[in-house]
Amino acid sequence: MIYLDHNATTPIAPEVREAMLPYLGDKWGNPSSSYRFGSQLRRVLESARAQVAELIGTSPREILFTSCGTESNNAAIHAALKANPLKRHIVTSAVEHSSVLNYCQALEKNGYRVTYLPVDCDGLLKLADLENAITENTAIVSLMWANNETGVLFPVREIAELCRSRGVLYHCDAVQAVGKLPTNLCDLPADYLSLTGHKLHAPKGIGALYVRRKTPFSPFIHGGHQERGLRGGTENVALIVALGKAAELARKQLPGYDAKVRPLRDALERGILGHPHNRPADTISPTGGDGRDAVAGIPGTELNGHPELRLANTTNITFHGIESEALLLLLDQEGVCASSGSACLADSDEPSHVVKAMKPDTGASRQMIRFSLGTETAPAQIELTLAGLRRAVKALRT
Amino acid sequence: MIYLDHNATTPIAPEVREAMLPYLGDKWGNPSSSYRFGSQLRRVLESARAQVAELIGTSPREILFTSCGTESNNAAIHAALKANPLKRHIVTSAVEHSSVLNYCQALEKNGYRVTYLPVDCDGLLKLADLENAITENTAIVSLMWANNETGVLFPVREIAELCRSRGVLYHCDAVQAVGKLPTNLCDLPADYLSLTGHKLHAPKGIGALYVRRKTPFSPFIHGGHQERGLRGGTENVALIVALGKAAELARKQLPGYDAKVRPLRDALERGILGHPHNRPADTISPTGGDGRDAVAGIPGTELNGHPELRLANTTNITFHGIESEALLLLLDQEGVCASSGSACLADSDEPSHVVKAMKPDTGASRQMIRFSLGTETAPAQIELTLAGLRRAVKALRT
Repeated sequence: MIYLDHNATTPIAPEVREAMLPYLGDKWGNPSSSYRFGSQLRRVLESARAQVAELIGTSPREILFTSCGTESNNAAIHAALKANPLKRHIVTSAVEHSSVLNYCQALEKNGYRVTYLPVDCDGLLKLADLENAITENTAIVSLMWANNETGVLFPVREIAELCRSRGVLYHCDAVQAVGKLPTNLCDLPADYLSLTGHKLHAPKGIGALYVRRKTPFSPFIHGGHQERGLRGGTENVALIVALGKAAELARKQLPGYDAKVRPLRDALERGILGHPHNRPADTISPTGGDGRDAVAGIPGTELNGHPELRLANTTNITFHGIESEALLLLLDQEGVCASSGSACLADSDEPSHVVKAMKPDTGASRQMIRFSLGTETAPAQIELTLAGLRRAVKALRT
Repeated sequence: MIYLDHNATTPIAPEVREAMLPYLGDKWGNPSSSYRFGSQLRRVLESARAQVAELIGTSPREILFTSCGTESNNAAIHAALKANPLKRHIVTSAVEHSSVLNYCQALEKNGYRVTYLPVDCDGLLKLADLENAITENTAIVSLMWANNETGVLFPVREIAELCRSRGVLYHCDAVQAVGKLPTNLCDLPADYLSLTGHKLHAPKGIGALYVRRKTPFSPFIHGGHQERGLRGGTENVALIVALGKAAELARKQLPGYDAKVRPLRDALERGILGHPHNRPADTISPTGGDGRDAVAGIPGTELNGHPELRLANTTNITFHGIESEALLLLLDQEGVCASSGSACLADSDEPSHVVKAMKPDTGASRQMIRFSLGTETAPAQIELTLAGLRRAVKALRT
């Protein structure tokens, strides 16, 4: 199997599994209990909280554990609205994850107004659009860091500073960024930041939400005194330990991440797009003439997303005239795992809302494939993927 | 260690651990993915859903996976309110779990009216009170089946039938009942029913919500298409498998549960209360004269909760003149794990809201201990607990 879908989920690291197993074995107590068998687990939770905090440059008191990135995203927006009951306006973008978009759509039915900022054909946001969208009535700005489908990066630092200068709370969905980009909340004045374990080699079912000190927060899930009363529900001890360990590993691997992943992603991209790129001439000028040998590539392909302002591991490519699902099926038969956008929406017949927002008048959103690499991706896998892709495209076009 | 706190959490069954481990190992795909490595996990989720459904006598289509019982309780109430936007009244009781009470209190701040039904000194509810509380404006009745602190049972079938006859949605918090009492939703016309894995020998971090066919439901956590679009967030595959296996085990063990657990609970209770019981004469007549030998018991003790209408595994006892926390500390030193009420509130200085609602004018709520047994509790452990208790009480009273 050649797994090129790391933005959907990642393999569980052996060290992570090792770290969590005792809490699925002998150490099964309830951390809220007063006897030692239970209460000694509080230390374990705090140690995991410190590991997560260290990965993103915060203090442990600013980390809440949640059940997933989706809950984190919902909880941040919910908290900002509760803190500003008179403000009934939310600013987000057209290319956010469904956990932000669908929550915003539900809030619209509840009397909130939502501005969905557009992106250009490269997936980039105009800061001026954000500036114009914020009003006296805006309770929160929720804009992601790295897009899950294209890897395109929003200028979160500028966004955060703009929000701060306008006195508006800012939530950053960093689910795809954390572990792939250095994250330091000392430098990034976001109020809320979401992350999830299963994009970081921890299991599915655990996430975290950063809430800046003094930023208002009220519970999204109401219950007992867990998480200082801010998130009810008996703590998911084993998966919290797993997330902590995964955060520690991610922090250690981060300095080498880009150098490991980017060359392979670029080789894959060159092999598909050819070199110089066969992007439409009216979109961007060819990147050729840099001394690299010309590569033929696969005809009728087009990159979706800005060539540079992107995660190092992600490429999103339209194969003109080929339905995504047909190509994915053949790739699966070739042993290649890729996707046609967010796994969270994979079973829908809808075209990608992200690519549609970038290129509304083309078929690009129904004919695209996302490849997302990981640190365990090997050069030989890229060669095999390119060979499989060429066979599959040829079969589908003849 | 003598673990008598099964209402707080339970040991993870070896079969459950065995069943889930592959999904923390090689089978780490995302079930929403289109390639087989991911999509084959959908079968696994559906098989777990069927196991949970079978435990409570429903169809798998009526089961949603959540992150915990707290989320299930919040989600059920939220769904009923969304379905009836003009109805702004909720009926619950004074002795519910914090996940219902704290959510209701938050809703009160949002303009909802909440009726908290009282209980009598045995922890029982008067159906007439419920009947009188329901109005044209009532959106939902949320009443638990088995109380987590006392084990006292509410007449859920009568409650469900009453709600149905009045056209009001009924949510049953069955977190403490499922696996301890036969549960068959063909006979129990509840609209929503909550359960959680970690009371059933699965790990913490996974729950489920039953939503009756045709009962309105809208998402509490908004995100992707997981759980038929009704609960966003990438599926917690490993813990869902664990919950399924735990449900299967619970179903198999249920016929023998009462006979295994009740005699030991009764022996513990007799050893503490003495026989005939030394309950206050004005509360209930002594249960003596049944031919059993008189047992001296520990002086100054009093049962909290109805002697018969209770879970087989739970006993809640006031030790007059002794602070709960002091006694728990000595019990811990004796190797006995018990609690002073809900683990979810264990770190608070508040007296038990459950015992306070039953006996408002006494110190019972600050001087009580809950013992909750499990199927692995052994007779010798009861003897050791009684000996330890006698030593601890003696030390604290002299």
